[in-house]
Amino acid sequence: MAAATVNKSAHEFDKGNLDSMLTRRFFFAPAFEIYGGVAGLYDYGPTGSALQANVLNEWRRHYIIEEDMLELDTTIMTLSEVLKTSGHVEKFADWMVKDSKNGEIYRADHLVEAVLEARLKGDKEARGIKLDEVVEEDDKKKKKKKVKSTAVKLEDSEVAEYESILAQIDNYTGPQLGELVRKFNITNPTTGNELTEPVEFNLMFESNIGPTGHIKGFLRPETAQGHFVNFARLLEFNNGKVPFASAQIGRSFRNEIAPRQGLLRVREFTMAEIEHYVDPLDKRHARFNEVKDVVLTLLAKDIQVQGRTDTVQMTVGDAVGQGIVDNETLGYFLGRTQLFLTKIGIDPKRLRCRQHMANEMAHYAADCWDFEIQSSYGWIECVGCADRSAYDLTVHSVRTKQPLRVQQRLETPRVVEKLDVQFDAKAFGMKFKKDAATIRNTITGLDEERLQCLKDELDKAGVSGVKCADGKVYEVTPDLVKINPITVTEHMRDFTPNVIEPSFGIGRILYSLLEHSYWAREQDKARGVLSFPVNVAPIKVLIVSISNDPKLTEIVYELTRKLRKLGIASRVDDSSVSIGKKYARNDELGTPFGITVDFATVQNGTVTIRERDTTSQYIGKIDDVLSTVDELVKGNVDWAGAAGKLEVYSGVQDVAE
Amino acid sequence: MAAATVNKSAHEFDKGNLDSMLTRRFFFAPAFEIYGGVAGLYDYGPTGSALQANVLNEWRRHYIIEEDMLELDTTIMTLSEVLKTSGHVEKFADWMVKDSKNGEIYRADHLVEAVLEARLKGDKEARGIKLDEVVEEDDKKKKKKKVKSTAVKLEDSEVAEYESILAQIDNYTGPQLGELVRKFNITNPTTGNELTEPVEFNLMFESNIGPTGHIKGFLRPETAQGHFVNFARLLEFNNGKVPFASAQIGRSFRNEIAPRQGLLRVREFTMAEIEHYVDPLDKRHARFNEVKDVVLTLLAKDIQVQGRTDTVQMTVGDAVGQGIVDNETLGYFLGRTQLFLTKIGIDPKRLRCRQHMANEMAHYAADCWDFEIQSSYGWIECVGCADRSAYDLTVHSVRTKQPLRVQQRLETPRVVEKLDVQFDAKAFGMKFKKDAATIRNTITGLDEERLQCLKDELDKAGVSGVKCADGKVYEVTPDLVKINPITVTEHMRDFTPNVIEPSFGIGRILYSLLEHSYWAREQDKARGVLSFPVNVAPIKVLIVSISNDPKLTEIVYELTRKLRKLGIASRVDDSSVSIGKKYARNDELGTPFGITVDFATVQNGTVTIRERDTTSQYIGKIDDVLSTVDELVKGNVDWAGAAGKLEVYSGVQDVAE
Repeated sequence: MAAATVNKSAHEFDKGNLDSMLTRRFFFAPAFEIYGGVAGLYDYGPTGSALQANVLNEWRRHYIIEEDMLELDTTIMTLSEVLKTSGHVEKFADWMVKDSKNGEIYRADHLVEAVLEARLKGDKEARGIKLDEVVEEDDKKKKKKKVKSTAVKLEDSEVAEYESILAQIDNYTGPQLGELVRKFNITNPTTGNELTEPVEFNLMFESNIGPTGHIKGFLRPETAQGHFVNFARLLEFNNGKVPFASAQIGRSFRNEIAPRQGLLRVREFTMAEIEHYVDPLDKRHARFNEVKDVVLTLLAKDIQVQGRTDTVQMTVGDAVGQGIVDNETLGYFLGRTQLFLTKIGIDPKRLRCRQHMANEMAHYAADCWDFEIQSSYGWIECVGCADRSAYDLTVHSVRTKQPLRVQQRLETPRVVEKLDVQFDAKAFGMKFKKDAATIRNTITGLDEERLQCLKDELDKAGVSGVKCADGKVYEVTPDLVKINPITVTEHMRDFTPNVIEPSFGIGRILYSLLEHSYWAREQDKARGVLSFPVNVAPIKVLIVSISNDPKLTEIVYELTRKLRKLGIASRVDDSSVSIGKKYARNDELGTPFGITVDFATVQNGTVTIRERDTTSQYIGKIDDVLSTVDELVKGNVDWAGAAGKLEVYSGVQDVAE
Repeated sequence: MAAATVNKSAHEFDKGNLDSMLTRRFFFAPAFEIYGGVAGLYDYGPTGSALQANVLNEWRRHYIIEEDMLELDTTIMTLSEVLKTSGHVEKFADWMVKDSKNGEIYRADHLVEAVLEARLKGDKEARGIKLDEVVEEDDKKKKKKKVKSTAVKLEDSEVAEYESILAQIDNYTGPQLGELVRKFNITNPTTGNELTEPVEFNLMFESNIGPTGHIKGFLRPETAQGHFVNFARLLEFNNGKVPFASAQIGRSFRNEIAPRQGLLRVREFTMAEIEHYVDPLDKRHARFNEVKDVVLTLLAKDIQVQGRTDTVQMTVGDAVGQGIVDNETLGYFLGRTQLFLTKIGIDPKRLRCRQHMANEMAHYAADCWDFEIQSSYGWIECVGCADRSAYDLTVHSVRTKQPLRVQQRLETPRVVEKLDVQFDAKAFGMKFKKDAATIRNTITGLDEERLQCLKDELDKAGVSGVKCADGKVYEVTPDLVKINPITVTEHMRDFTPNVIEPSFGIGRILYSLLEHSYWAREQDKARGVLSFPVNVAPIKVLIVSISNDPKLTEIVYELTRKLRKLGIASRVDDSSVSIGKKYARNDELGTPFGITVDFATVQNGTVTIRERDTTSQYIGKIDDVLSTVDELVKGNVDWAGAAGKLEVYSGVQDVAE
């Protein structure tokens, strides 16, 4: 696009203007707004829905189709047992504090962060530092409760301590947050009342399945568990081979304590998740070479624990080569995701990969990198790329006793030493009677290490206790059980795959995209322009007519018919305002092209086409203009290159009055 | 497609074979199957997801794009107030009965139906009527608890009474079902225990929003309310004009009492809903002519209340003309939906439009027609087309005091008589003080009829009581309020639009489509074929190679690359089974075309292409075959017509061994 030739960065970002425009043009609005709304729930209108559909379509092409991923569509309502196994019932929680008198609830980490930031701001005021120098901190605060700052100077050591805490605010446990509240005398900023100790609040919405009240369900907090419980079927569908990936786009739910950041922290959201299953001994990726030169902006964990936030630019190849990113597959998805996000219009200068620190990592993750996108709310996690190791498949397999494992034929058979267990079946049965089977299964189920312990004890002491699932300990002796090392030749390998998971918060990406696409023209600051890339723009072509003359209306109808046949979303504006105003209105919708029908169209069969960012225009025969639009929409040509069949046109002034 | 030339109807439908195939090929499977599953929750695998995506894509093109509908994406979690207003909290319930001893729960209407049907079957056995003659009733029963029949002869009058009850089983209220239970001595078929009186069970899943426990939410039972609460924004987006439509595809939830019909009765499902807003005084449709000749199979309500189920074939034009279907807009959507369902592969012979009877109609509907599709479960509602009148917009408007109305400029201004209200502001304020504003607003808010009553009373009695929202009654006199008839010229009309709603249960349509597409070849009855239309087939092209020779593998890779560029979903089968078996496996996935690469491809650049239903093959140059595939997938040509650039090929035997 010729967008780059427009000096968009020169304008000052006006969040108030953007917000009012997004509501006015119905990109999104608070759900049940006429009922007063509920925090954290939003509806997408026609423009927002179309933008989302186009972004999801690009996502599907970029990931699912390009890599033949197996798409799934699993239920949102999830049996509580599944989420108990995954750890969500116990651990998927945030810490909240309550006002000890009026019961008002705050999310503990957000409150600590907001109060310390307000004190730092007050300190800067007291030191006479100009406010625009602290604008970044100020903006960042919008995600939390607004805390008013007062100009109070802090000790230099306090400033340093606060800054260090803020740099690793995501790294504190609940009790540690409680200590910070006490240490820094943090109270409810509204009432000044004391706060309770932080308590955990589980973020899953709970419900009952069926009329009995005995079957408990949760709304899924991620789509991932729906992949894992179907792993055996997916593996079979893929002829038993790894690596492969499953993918799913769908709604998930988190019952946030106090959502305050618009689309960035919501209680219901669309996710797109990939679960890529790999051999734990071989995390190379066949197509790694295709992304090795992609440059990432990295913020590694060892930088953060020093209280720093400075980033480095590095290729995917170097990041993996130097061990900063753990393995090729994780690196591959970081590279692919960088390409995806910039393709749909995210500004690469406001995009970074931040590695999780130890305490903030999800309970299942072995390594995790977030794509954070900068907006007026600060740096926000929009995509998480986690190596979930074998955690999920292992816990579901243990719980359900279903083998969620891969059998792989070894290219060269492998000779291994193993411990072989032999029972004296008759004597064993005589001694243990009805418990015999349980004890035998317990012993054969022991791993190699424990089996060696049992053998050592039997060899040494001549007796050993075997603890069974019923809690009882049974004494076995060498005459009942013989454990001996043997040599076997293995032709098959059996392993639980590891899972690399890129997980996309679609709403967060959409909102960031809206901010990154937004600007205003010098001559009309009140009206904005959304410079979406053509591939995600909700509507591709605006069609306007210079008059209501039936001859022109007929041509407009014909144009819409032809565009529909090409599969190009168009919109006719037949309202009574001027053409300049129609263009301006469609700049707000991010419509990249506008075709104007006038009396020359009737005479010569020509129409003009205008480009949104430059407002420059070409003129040409209808079919030439349409085939150019088709090429523009397919991305085969950009605006500058589109001049081929068409001529530059400068006959119409299209500035809004 | 040449499918019509294959005698598919000759095969006997084998539900067991189909079910096992659908699970084996992972079209869908019970959710959390490794945890034992939960009734009424299913996951779609890669094939089912792709089939669903293609059906939804056709739906989007057929409705949203074709008619420029405004697409929405609203929240599933819904504030309880919204659903109180809509009537769902009070009325969205089924009747259940409990075993009086063990507490087992049944849905009352399904139990009555199952027991009476079992008795009718037992009667037929006792009368020596062969079982295959009662197969339809038998199949229908699968949707309810299986009730074993015993050969007991009934009186002829009893048979007639049972049949009449069954024909209108959907028309009974809870207390009436209780009467039937008592009258016919219906007990728990498993235990023989008595049943409790039917009690209502609300079908909405309930949860709490946020940590306080004070904000109650429900999972939406339909997407419709999300449209209605956004009506004001939608109307503004459409420049204030009706008719227009909003559309939404998304998940909805119904906590069914005892779901037992596979995909046909589930607790979580994807819906596609259109809300078409029309002027209540003008329900004509601009494009009605385009569908007036579409033939529908109608089962009107007056036939059903006679206990009959016979249908008539009638054009949409006649059905509306004769007043059987209430209005053009409703008729338009019936016609469009008939076209849609047959386009995606539903057999028109197993499709009918059944009108709702008075008692079964949803609480909001003025008239309602269901598209029912016949499958092994009987005739099942898959699409509901309801005229919801102004119900929803009115109740939300009253509850929220937001105007959900259309202002329309009258072409010719209208002179009307109105009652004009004048207050003596000073005297009024003196008398009522702080209540003055409330009383004044109450009076000006009265409708024309009540205002006339107030005027009459003031004229006659010289005093009247005005009841305000606070419950108090205030006495007003003619010196304080003057009400006089005046003549005004109105230039605007103000009305609440009516809503015509076509609502699609996507899972039910998908399952019906699977049954309608399924058959087996004479020579291989164990393996099925799914004859999907090309437009909805999950995968369009299978690619197989006769050998693993790198020269051939290279060509296969090139073919996948070219097909991906054309946007055509393909799948390579590089497993080690025979080509015939690969074709047979892909017949089970419903893949319409198979391209085979062999050594002739290396020598001559030719490949063969096979059609699924006929198994006939053509041969041609790679690019000619690909462009033919492109035309076939776009629907521009059928298999018989595809012979153009290609030659008939008969060199390979492709029957599975």
